[in-house]
This record gives sequence, C-alpha cells and structure tokens, in this order.
Amino acid sequence: MKRTSRDIRTANRYEVLRQIIAASPTSRQELAAATGLSLATVATLVGELLGLGMITEVGFEDSAGGRPRGLVAVNPSGGALIGVDIAETYVHVELFDLALNAVARAEEDMRPGESRPEQVVGHVAAAVGAVIAQAGIEEARVLGVGVSVPGQVDRDNGVAEYAPNFDWRDVPLLDLLAEHLAHPLYLDNPLRACAVAELWFGAARGRGDAVVVNLGTGVGAGLVLGGGLHRGVSNSAGEWGHTTLVLDGRLCHCGNRGCVETYVGAPGIMRRLRELSPGSALLHPGDQTATVGALARAVAAHDPVAVEVVRDTARYLAAGIADLINLLNPEVIVLSSWVAATLGEPLLAEVREAVARHALRRPLAATEIVLSPIAGDPVSLGAATFALEGALGSPRRGAGSARRPVPAGSRGAAPS
Amino acid sequence: MKRTSRDIRTANRYEVLRQIIAASPTSRQELAAATGLSLATVATLVGELLGLGMITEVGFEDSAGGRPRGLVAVNPSGGALIGVDIAETYVHVELFDLALNAVARAEEDMRPGESRPEQVVGHVAAAVGAVIAQAGIEEARVLGVGVSVPGQVDRDNGVAEYAPNFDWRDVPLLDLLAEHLAHPLYLDNPLRACAVAELWFGAARGRGDAVVVNLGTGVGAGLVLGGGLHRGVSNSAGEWGHTTLVLDGRLCHCGNRGCVETYVGAPGIMRRLRELSPGSALLHPGDQTATVGALARAVAAHDPVAVEVVRDTARYLAAGIADLINLLNPEVIVLSSWVAATLGEPLLAEVREAVARHALRRPLAATEIVLSPIAGDPVSLGAATFALEGALGSPRRGAGSARRPVPAGSRGAAPS
Ligand SMILES: [Zn+2]
Ligand SMILES: [Zn+2]
Repeated sequence: MKRTSRDIRTANRYEVLRQIIAASPTSRQELAAATGLSLATVATLVGELLGLGMITEVGFEDSAGGRPRGLVAVNPSGGALIGVDIAETYVHVELFDLALNAVARAEEDMRPGESRPEQVVGHVAAAVGAVIAQAGIEEARVLGVGVSVPGQVDRDNGVAEYAPNFDWRDVPLLDLLAEHLAHPLYLDNPLRACAVAELWFGAARGRGDAVVVNLGTGVGAGLVLGGGLHRGVSNSAGEWGHTTLVLDGRLCHCGNRGCVETYVGAPGIMRRLRELSPGSALLHPGDQTATVGALARAVAAHDPVAVEVVRDTARYLAAGIADLINLLNPEVIVLSSWVAATLGEPLLAEVREAVARHALRRPLAATEIVLSPIAGDPVSLGAATFALEGALGSPRRGAGSARRPVPAGSRGAAPS
Repeated sequence: MKRTSRDIRTANRYEVLRQIIAASPTSRQELAAATGLSLATVATLVGELLGLGMITEVGFEDSAGGRPRGLVAVNPSGGALIGVDIAETYVHVELFDLALNAVARAEEDMRPGESRPEQVVGHVAAAVGAVIAQAGIEEARVLGVGVSVPGQVDRDNGVAEYAPNFDWRDVPLLDLLAEHLAHPLYLDNPLRACAVAELWFGAARGRGDAVVVNLGTGVGAGLVLGGGLHRGVSNSAGEWGHTTLVLDGRLCHCGNRGCVETYVGAPGIMRRLRELSPGSALLHPGDQTATVGALARAVAAHDPVAVEVVRDTARYLAAGIADLINLLNPEVIVLSSWVAATLGEPLLAEVREAVARHALRRPLAATEIVLSPIAGDPVSLGAATFALEGALGSPRRGAGSARRPVPAGSRGAAPS
C-alpha cells in the first residue's frame, strides 16, 4: 500500500504521543525538534491529544528571552489499555494506564488439548475480566483490547488464519471474543506485537529502521522501516524464520527445508543439545522453557556442551541476521522474546562475533545488535500498544480499522 | 532515518510528477484520486511543478455538472536529464527529455585494465558531451547527470566506496567528474538505479511494496517500500546477493560462503554450465554476455544441458526470492537487468514454479513475479531519474543533496 496523507497524519500523531510518553512533561517546541515536524503540525496534534484526554497541560517553562512555553504530559488516567498474549500453554493479560505502566496482570494456564477456539476465548474473557476488576476501573475507561495470537492473522477481519501450534485455520477470533467483551478489539501476532513494543518503548524508539528478531518457539523478524511497522501487502511481513539457511536442510513445519527457525527456534536448540549429548541432564523432554533455562545456567557455569549449543545456535542465527543487515541496512537489530531473554549476554556476544564474519562491512558498521531493554512481557505490551494506536485512529496502510462494532447487549457478558 | 515533514513533501512531489508523466494530460482532481493526496496538496504541488517549468497547462475538460477542470501535462522540453551507466566493460550514457524519453545515446568501450578512475571519468565526460551534442541542446538545459557505478557508494559525498570489479576503494568519483562536467551530479549504484526506474516507469509504479531483483554479473534487490526507495541507514540496503543460501557453500568475493550471488550471478551460471558440461559449445570463456545469450538460444531449442542450467539457477534464485517474499510480503517481484532480460520467460516460468515450493502460502498469494517491462537500459533510465529527483528537491532521508556546487571555470571543460 502507498502512504496516503491520512496515513501520514496518523503516523505523526503516533510520533508525537510516543515522544510525550517518553519525555513528559515537554513543550510543543521540544516536540517539534524531536520529531522533525513543524511547530504548527505539532500544535494541531497536541490539540487533538488534549481533546482525547490522553495528555494534559501541566504548566509552563521559561524560554530564553521568549514567552513561557506551555508544557504537556501524558495523562496516565486518561484511559486504560489491555494487552492479551495468547501463547501455546497460557493466556497472559495485562492492563496498562495511558503511560503504558502495567497496573494489573492475570494469567490462565492452558493444558495441551485445551486449545479449541471457544476454550481459548473463555480464558481470555476471564483474564480480561480479572484485570479490570483488579485495577478497579469502570469498563468504559478501557479504550481497547489488543490480542496477540501466534501464526498468520488477518487483522482487518480479526481472523486467526493459521496457528500451527493450535491447529487453527481461519478462526474468527475477534468475532468470538466480541460475544464476551464489549471493548474495541485488535488482533495481531507476537512478531508484530514485539516490534511495536520496541518501536514505542524499547530499542527501536526514535530509530528509522530497526529489526526486532523474535526468538521463542517460533522465530521471526518484526520490521520497523521508515519509523513505522512494515506489514507488507497482506500483513504477513516478517516471516524471517522461514528464510532458507541450509538448502535441503532440516524439514520445517512450513513445508520448506533448512529454515532459520528449524535451527534457532527453541525446538531446534533442544534438538542440537540432544545431538551433542543425548542423555544430557540439561534436557527436559517436552519442556522448552525448562531446557533453555537449564542451558543458560550451564553456560554461566562454563559447561562445555551448553557453551557449544549456544555457539552453534548463534552461528545459525548470525548467518540469518547478517542477511537482514545486508538486505535492510537497519540502525539496530533487537533480540527479543523469551529465548533471547533467557540466554541473554552469552548469546548476544556469540551472535555479534559471528555476524561480523558474515555481513558486509558497510552495513555492518552502521548496525548495533542489542538485547531488548523491555522488562516484562513485550507481547502484552505490544498488544496493548495496538489498542493505543487504534484509539489514536488506525492508519489506512495495510489495515483499515480492526475495531469491532460493539455488539448490542454484550456489555453484560464481560466479567467485571 | 525517520521521515520528516520535508521528506513527505518531497515524496508527494515525486508522486504527483510520476502520475503526471504516466497519465498526461490530467487534472488536479484525477491526481488527487490517483495519489490519495488532498486536492489542496495536489494544487500546491502542481503549482510548484508549473513554476519549475516541468509541466504546463494544456487546456480544460468538462466535469459532470461542475466547472471545467484545468489540465496539466509533462513538458518534455522543460529540461534534459542524463543517465550514466558505468559497467565493467563499457560506459553507456543516455539523454532524456522530461517525459523520460531517450533522445540521444552514446557508448564508450573500456578494455580490461583501463578502469583507473581518471580513465573512466574521461569516458564518461566524452559520452556526456556526445549526447548533448547529438541532442543539439544548450548545456544549461541539462538539469542534472545521474551516475551509476557498481558496488557500494556514499551518495552524500559522491564516493565510490568499494567497486570490486574495478578494484576501486573510496574513489571520489563526483569530485573527479565535476572537473569535467558543470551540471549537478548524483551518484548511486545499478541496484538502486533499476529500482527507481521500476518505481517511476516500470512494474513498481503505483505499488507500495516491490522488490526489484537485479540479475547481472552481480546480484541484488532494490527495495521499494511504502512507495519509496528503501536505502537503509547508510545507503547500502538491497545487498540480497550476499544472503546465505547454502551455509558453508561456494566462497564469495565478499568473504562469506554460500551467497545467492555465487549461484545466480552470471559467473555462477557459467560455473554450473561448466560443471554439467565442461566442453559445452555454449561456454564462451571470459565472456558472460555471449555465454548467457547462447544459453538462452539453446533453451529455446530444448537443449537438455541448457534447460538444466536454467532450472538449477532458477532453483537457487527461487529459494532466495521466497526469502524476500516471506520477509517483506511485497506486491510484486520484478526480475531486472541483463541476465533476466536474456533468459526471459523460460527463467521466469521455472522461478515461479520453484518459489511456490519454498514460500509461505499467505505472502505467496499476495505476490506477482514479473519480468521488467522497461525497454532499453534500466540503469541509465534510473540514473537519470535520480537527477530528476534531485531537480525536484532531494529528500533529507538517507541523503541530503548529492548535488555538487558548480566549480568555477569548469564549464568549458565539458566537450560539446
Ligand atoms: Zn519454514
Ligand atoms: Zn557474498
């Protein structure tokens, strides 16, 4: 999709609110300097945000030799946002104030085989009700609920098109949720949720071009290009996990062979550990989280097998990251999600070293590789951010509004 | 870099002129509908283009039930643009009118070993002088000269940073050229020249996200994202030729192993032919153009070795193209440059079939794969387009102006 003037106005509105959240209190003049927008444009956008109650006037500062400048700040109590992270084994929900501080959390476990759409929707509705109750706020104060579900999603229609781990195809998730929840709902996947979290609150903030490499059970790359999320023509950009790294290599669930994900996703890491040391005490069969946690502790204790597993993983990861650097020439590569958080600095160090062997000199010199600075669950935060963006007006680009009409009579169905 | 309001104004100016060139004569109302810009914005930009003499008022059309609408058209004689394609064995130069019709052409051969910077600059200056003389126009009518040189370039400073085939490092090419040419000069590489040619005049026109896959001696992917050229933070985006396709595969001149370019670049294709049939009559040692031409003719005659070489090449190419589709989810993949033009439809058919085996269903369904529709040399056309963009005002993004100040006393040095 091409950018239209409406897209640009929306992007500017995001940019100004992002800057206010990052640097409250701030003046229109500072906002203009930080965003590159004209003072007139900033003044208009600040007026809109004041009108929405998302920010407030908080006084004046002296300016050298001029009139005092009005200061604005984010209004944390101007509304609440809810982020829902539907993962393989749990549903994690957080409620945020408008400064995107987490105010309440709830989690529902899901046992294997309990992932029929109605069951998952029941868990989500219960957890959303729980966080609203915990926060003690009125339902009407919730500006929106962002929902992340793994796999490929049609966000315009709120459909989970393909979620291999749940064996879902074309599940109308937002329609099902709208029977329980009366709030505006937004659907996307963890890849883009993590990217938008970095864009608003993490290592991609203020960067034009950034790649958020998601390392979990699945693997992908959320793309921030030209200061905004790059979705592609059918909202499926970022499927870097299915980049061919080894022609005719390991078989992937996508049908292709040698995909990055088969080597650096959590199951691929477990497979490498099993190859190197079939009876390793680090191996917790069927439990990726426990295995990756054990690996991280063993690396800290200089266990040679664990060190080798991390090095091998980093080698594959680095070849794929070098491809991203050569192709996109980004300012920063952010390693995100739970595998990156668990393996942490030792993984980062190996990756940096191996990337330097693969990437071209010029783009390599322009790129930093960092761990995500976001504490807590980036997926819930990103999902809530989609709800915030929705409340600011959805861009036409790749989207239209994912907002659902509020179904008549459904308010009472949301537990509170 | 983030997009600033100035970038956006420049992008809008490009968009409006692009549309006028494509659909002259046209009205402001039609332009607003085609570009998604407001009528007020279009009217302002049309006023600027009229002021620059790039377009003219050409009459009125009736509008249903309203006032007659003013029509504008591109003004071909509003100025001339020159595109310079510096390749391994020749310098090809074309002069275009403002509708980007080629008006004059000149070519200088370069023998191996004649590629010292001063020698190349001499060839360029002679050929530029020749096209201006052929066209019979005044020097002052030339709005700019765009120069494409293979390899990595610093366009802000006009430096050819690394051109492996010439063994150039940090050659201040525009400074050297400015001693001979008094026109505004712009430097970039063939990868981005082909991409911008497709964006303005080819298969990427009106598309938000497109990838222009360049198949020549070198291989790369020019990226059109969000309706504009994606350059990356240090103008080196698009180095897809150095994507790892076969971990620990063929050694590449970049130092990495298994790069796409080592399999699908013209030397890689020749290598495959030699492997399959060492004494093949199709093989013209040291002459890539002749060999690829012979292959194309042999495929047309159903020669089994030639068919196998093209199929193998397509297989590697398709794995790399599937990576691009999965990662970027573009609307169109354009196969460009001389290898694509020479192997043509048979290559395209094999690529389409093999991509379908590698790419994910959802992004695959959204992507067309086509041969470049541009007749003639897309590199010269793209280089001239950089000069046109420069004349319209360079965007700040990734650039600043690459325009050189006119050195005093240098006008007479340009042959005419
Ligand atoms: Zn795969
Ligand atoms: Zn290479």
